[in-house]
Amino acid sequence: MANITKKVSWSSRADESGAAGEGTPLLNGSEQPKLSRQDSLRGRPKEIPHNEKLLSLKYESLDYDNIENQLFLEEERRMSYMGFRCLEISRWVVCGLIGFLTGLIACMIDIVVEELAGIKYQVVKENIEKFTEVGGLSISLILWAVLNSVFVMLGAIIVAFFEPIAAGSGIPQIKCYLNGVKIPRVVRLKTLLVKVCGVICSVVGGLAVGKEGPMIHSGAVVAAGVSQGRSTSLKRDFKIFEYFRRDTEKRDFVSAGAAAGVSAAFGAPVGGVLFSLEEGASFWNQMLTWRIFFASMISTFTLNFFLSIYHNNPGDLSNPGLINFGRFENERVAYNLYEIPLFIAMGAIGGLLGALFNVLNYWLTIFRIRYVHRPCLQVMEAMLVAAVTATVSFTMIYFSNDCQPLGPEHTEEYPLQLFCADGEYNSMATAFFNTPERSVRSLFHNQPGTYNPLTLGLFTLTYFFLACWTYGLAVSAGVFIPSLLIGAAWGRLCGILLASITSNGSIWADPGKYALIGAAAQLGGIVRMTLSLTVIMVEATGNVTYGLPIMLVLMTAKIVGDYFVEGLYDIHIKLQSVPFLHWEAPATSHWLTAREVMSSPVTCLNRIEKVGTIVDVLSNTSTNHNGFPVVAQVAGSDEPAKLCGLILRSQLIVLLKHKVFVELARSRLTQRKLQLKDFRDAYPRFPPIQSIHVSQDERECMMDLTEFMNATPYTVPQETSLPRVFKLFRALGLRHLVVVDDENRVVGLVTRKDLARYHLGKHGLEELQLAQT
Amino acid sequence: MANITKKVSWSSRADESGAAGEGTPLLNGSEQPKLSRQDSLRGRPKEIPHNEKLLSLKYESLDYDNIENQLFLEEERRMSYMGFRCLEISRWVVCGLIGFLTGLIACMIDIVVEELAGIKYQVVKENIEKFTEVGGLSISLILWAVLNSVFVMLGAIIVAFFEPIAAGSGIPQIKCYLNGVKIPRVVRLKTLLVKVCGVICSVVGGLAVGKEGPMIHSGAVVAAGVSQGRSTSLKRDFKIFEYFRRDTEKRDFVSAGAAAGVSAAFGAPVGGVLFSLEEGASFWNQMLTWRIFFASMISTFTLNFFLSIYHNNPGDLSNPGLINFGRFENERVAYNLYEIPLFIAMGAIGGLLGALFNVLNYWLTIFRIRYVHRPCLQVMEAMLVAAVTATVSFTMIYFSNDCQPLGPEHTEEYPLQLFCADGEYNSMATAFFNTPERSVRSLFHNQPGTYNPLTLGLFTLTYFFLACWTYGLAVSAGVFIPSLLIGAAWGRLCGILLASITSNGSIWADPGKYALIGAAAQLGGIVRMTLSLTVIMVEATGNVTYGLPIMLVLMTAKIVGDYFVEGLYDIHIKLQSVPFLHWEAPATSHWLTAREVMSSPVTCLNRIEKVGTIVDVLSNTSTNHNGFPVVAQVAGSDEPAKLCGLILRSQLIVLLKHKVFVELARSRLTQRKLQLKDFRDAYPRFPPIQSIHVSQDERECMMDLTEFMNATPYTVPQETSLPRVFKLFRALGLRHLVVVDDENRVVGLVTRKDLARYHLGKHGLEELQLAQT
Repeated sequence: MANITKKVSWSSRADESGAAGEGTPLLNGSEQPKLSRQDSLRGRPKEIPHNEKLLSLKYESLDYDNIENQLFLEEERRMSYMGFRCLEISRWVVCGLIGFLTGLIACMIDIVVEELAGIKYQVVKENIEKFTEVGGLSISLILWAVLNSVFVMLGAIIVAFFEPIAAGSGIPQIKCYLNGVKIPRVVRLKTLLVKVCGVICSVVGGLAVGKEGPMIHSGAVVAAGVSQGRSTSLKRDFKIFEYFRRDTEKRDFVSAGAAAGVSAAFGAPVGGVLFSLEEGASFWNQMLTWRIFFASMISTFTLNFFLSIYHNNPGDLSNPGLINFGRFENERVAYNLYEIPLFIAMGAIGGLLGALFNVLNYWLTIFRIRYVHRPCLQVMEAMLVAAVTATVSFTMIYFSNDCQPLGPEHTEEYPLQLFCADGEYNSMATAFFNTPERSVRSLFHNQPGTYNPLTLGLFTLTYFFLACWTYGLAVSAGVFIPSLLIGAAWGRLCGILLASITSNGSIWADPGKYALIGAAAQLGGIVRMTLSLTVIMVEATGNVTYGLPIMLVLMTAKIVGDYFVEGLYDIHIKLQSVPFLHWEAPATSHWLTAREVMSSPVTCLNRIEKVGTIVDVLSNTSTNHNGFPVVAQVAGSDEPAKLCGLILRSQLIVLLKHKVFVELARSRLTQRKLQLKDFRDAYPRFPPIQSIHVSQDERECMMDLTEFMNATPYTVPQETSLPRVFKLFRALGLRHLVVVDDENRVVGLVTRKDLARYHLGKHGLEELQLAQT
Repeated sequence: MANITKKVSWSSRADESGAAGEGTPLLNGSEQPKLSRQDSLRGRPKEIPHNEKLLSLKYESLDYDNIENQLFLEEERRMSYMGFRCLEISRWVVCGLIGFLTGLIACMIDIVVEELAGIKYQVVKENIEKFTEVGGLSISLILWAVLNSVFVMLGAIIVAFFEPIAAGSGIPQIKCYLNGVKIPRVVRLKTLLVKVCGVICSVVGGLAVGKEGPMIHSGAVVAAGVSQGRSTSLKRDFKIFEYFRRDTEKRDFVSAGAAAGVSAAFGAPVGGVLFSLEEGASFWNQMLTWRIFFASMISTFTLNFFLSIYHNNPGDLSNPGLINFGRFENERVAYNLYEIPLFIAMGAIGGLLGALFNVLNYWLTIFRIRYVHRPCLQVMEAMLVAAVTATVSFTMIYFSNDCQPLGPEHTEEYPLQLFCADGEYNSMATAFFNTPERSVRSLFHNQPGTYNPLTLGLFTLTYFFLACWTYGLAVSAGVFIPSLLIGAAWGRLCGILLASITSNGSIWADPGKYALIGAAAQLGGIVRMTLSLTVIMVEATGNVTYGLPIMLVLMTAKIVGDYFVEGLYDIHIKLQSVPFLHWEAPATSHWLTAREVMSSPVTCLNRIEKVGTIVDVLSNTSTNHNGFPVVAQVAGSDEPAKLCGLILRSQLIVLLKHKVFVELARSRLTQRKLQLKDFRDAYPRFPPIQSIHVSQDERECMMDLTEFMNATPYTVPQETSLPRVFKLFRALGLRHLVVVDDENRVVGLVTRKDLARYHLGKHGLEELQLAQT
């Protein structure tokens, strides 16, 4: 039998806990402490400690279902077939633009990072070389640490003080956005600027981070901006693409932008499409897929083209991504059947190490939420990490005695001689004294014997903890490259060890192959994507031969990792208490019905409602409803009111702002005609109700909602099982689902939080608490 | 303004045209001529000539929405969390099995074709060599033509006489299945057997066909069989996987099977997943994607493993597909920016040629439907094509004087010397005297200069018409390889011409590159897939460098081709008058509402209904409804009945068969308890109503439908716009959608045919006719 560990009678709860779930951050005036009834009953403290058993009330939903009101339908009906064709073409144009701009941004980041990192490493190298002879390398260490800290400080300051949402890779935020959760400020221009500058600073600052993850977020912001044809931040409206000013269209473009970001980051256009698919496939269709593909293609092409000019090789289109794993030659990539079990074992190791990484990072994040939430502390932590990274790297290099001969075709950009003989270089330094992208490449491609096992082992160990400490800092940076680097290091180690324990070493001769498998295993163990990651890895290596082993490894890593803990992104989503809807309802939730999960009673409005009532309902800070069923009272009859539509807070706000009132006893004709354009102009930052002044006279007027409400909202009967409600909600991207009785009267309302509340825990079905965090 | 060219008042039409759309082929007794009212009014002939403006009534829908009745919910509620875990594991096991068996079948086909074709070509080659010297090559021609005709005759006989559904590639049928249309007999064991034998015969028979398309169908049949844990044809029930005996689960497995088929055919596991995605993404979710991926992976692995043993190279896993384009070496694959316009131009050529191919094939198919519908005629046509193919090939080879030196490392399997000097071979023969797969490979990889332009031009021309004539014959065979071959030939021709017109020929030195682009362009122009085809091509070439140009080429080919005519598969789906639901409702359909598209009046049943009434309703051959809304009359009241559920014909049949009656005035307790298992055992071949005997006494009994009906069917109000209805229907995979008024009373029913009827033609929105074809 399914059992629920904590079951309260939700159907009887009052408004403040249930429907209030749709609290809007716009209503900033209403931020007095609100406690749900349960919490106040149990005498909980006002500040609820963060844990993953909470759902925050601060997140709104997005409307991924078109609001089909009369205005919308009239517009659609007026539009000719040619009009729709033009719209379709402009969608393609927008996608092309998104791809182009995303590629350009990636290119810009890459060039700036290369140049700055080049200067930094050159300065430090010269300094080290100077002091190696005369002694006093501690000065070099200090120089290195200070340089790193300064860069990281800059990056952390803009993130912590100006736009905290730009911290991290941004992938969890984009996942939430595509899922239908409105994360405030996530797709704003300012976020993009901070993100781009932040990622440059943190990579140049030598942190154990990559610049690839943030590209996904950047692409999404570009998409959200370009597709709207205006910038609210810059107060410029280009009067184009007005049709796309709604959540549904915007979401489609954002998924294209995310795909373009992946594509630019890894040179993986198909991988980009699959990434968007894995994260938001519930709204998929063929034309959209093709547009997303087009954006990805343009993005990687743009990046490649401009980088080829930068590298003085114009027109050479063989380096399509920010990171390039280098080409694996065909004769080297052959693998044999008996290697497959080895690959699977490495996948399992990757899963274990990934789970360890995630658990450590989870504790660290909890610690940070509790104790490191002030911006100045965050900046200091980031600087500390930067200094520690430099120190640890320096120490490792200093004490390493792994000297390798400097070949004539050496690929190291900044070979450090240190205490090695002339014509040799320090091998540990190639791993630490380099941008992480270059280190990954050398681990994949350097000749066998370039690294000795001890170097690799120590490097893996230190880099693992550094990367784990780094992820979650208030800097914008990704976890892809550090994961690949850790994996490549221990993977290469495995290859070397295998070669040493077998007498006939010929088949194990290439540790680069094992480095690739290890990288895949480690990355898969941490982020737990399989399909898109396989394709990304295959596209980045430029060779499909490894497709099969990479798949096997990623699957193994996922299965092993999932046994212990969720993926890194999911952990961070949970820790932020986001009401994230998974693909399916929890398996054992069939015995719950709409009656039990819905919020009730529901605040309904009449089809022709008094302005005063509407203002009062909207101003009621203890409920903060965002959607209101509209009901029709049969005139002169005593029968209960029937559902006839659904209207949103944002629509009512626009109506109030434009004073679309009918005075009593006047005909509807005098009402000011509102256009769809008025709603689009207000999108997406609708003013709060407090900013709208309604006089006492106006309060007595009436408002006719008929034209503006969605006259055909989706409804379910009360007996509908939770999985069925969930499927409807998820498949159609709903925000509000009206529950009716068999007379079509409103009995409740299901919102995202009502569904996201149930999840499968260790002891069966569990219910999360709603809280105002 | 949107305009409809032909608008009739559908809401007022009588049952025979609207709801009768759900006619079931099971009711074979009811096949007296039925004319829709319109047709009879216009005095149309009984046999309506085939054209694409019809929708056939013979196709049923599948139930891709779970029937959540009490029995189902009780079972789900009884199941523990561990139960769901076990189910999930068995889904993975089934997917693994599907992949394994699909790979095995592919392997078997490949080996048999290789062996038989080897024998054939050896015999013919020896004969030709014998007669080249003594004269009388016409005997060789006759030998070749007769050998081909015999093989093709065998293949055509089993298809035409035993299982016509096995004709062609099967891809259109699988597209329809995933879309939710029940194509009779499409996933039966017999179909699989005929398909496999048929494809072997047609490939060995030297037709211009490939063995890759049929693999997709074979994979789907394997999936449908394995997942049900029994074979109805063999009358064996293994009593496993009983949970999966419903349309929803079966569809998921079939999409995995189709993906496994693609994967085995092209060695493209990711391409397989994307193929399933492009064809049926409306039901996508993450876990399913991963399972499909797993099936694909296992399939390509199995094929690769067994083929490596067959090729005496066990454990070498580098040839993962039936067709292998051969590895493109890295130094050869570089391309430059200025080549991109050339690629795009080639894409446009591919689009044009593809459109020409499709138009010719369309006319041919119309001709075949009208005049070549008798099995013996079909067999004769197939034999004619085989003989003509052999003759044309022979003539081309005979008159060709393109002699090439036979290098020491020649890759030709059957080099024909003919009239060439010793140590030379006839170049035309490498294209014709070979399996198409090998020809493609030589066009891609042979050294520059291997073919002269005239040879390639003539080959393209003849093969184009041969392939066009061949597709649609009553043999089971695919169009992928012929398309690739045509494209590779003219692509290589382009490469050679480009090299000759530029003085500095170095960069054009490799015509193989252009052959690849041409192949992509031609295939894209014919089948019009973009995303999955890009990935398939990339995976089959084993190198991602060409990803970008292939994408561009496929997109161009699609855009150019779509301007003239639809893709080949869509043409064939249309010609079969299948009620196929596209991704979105036609753009200009917003002014249609549920009221206009629904069928009404609807035959409703009471919650407790007289057996006689039910039998009469089911036996009514003039309606053939498949779904019945169940209504509840409020006892002792005069109010109209409210909707309280939905029950299917198949469920009623099972209830009648098990005689689940309550005698009048008895309590419900005496009713025999029916299990979900009884419904599952009857699935999917429910007996016709005529086979169930109900005595006169039993007719007076009552049936209580409460437990068996779906108590929470999805409903929409009458004012819902068509796109909104469409979205709900498509997103949830519905079969029946009940239209209710604002008192929750049934006013109509929307089925697949009501929605598929509207499409965008040249003159705006058009309405298709429903016909009993």
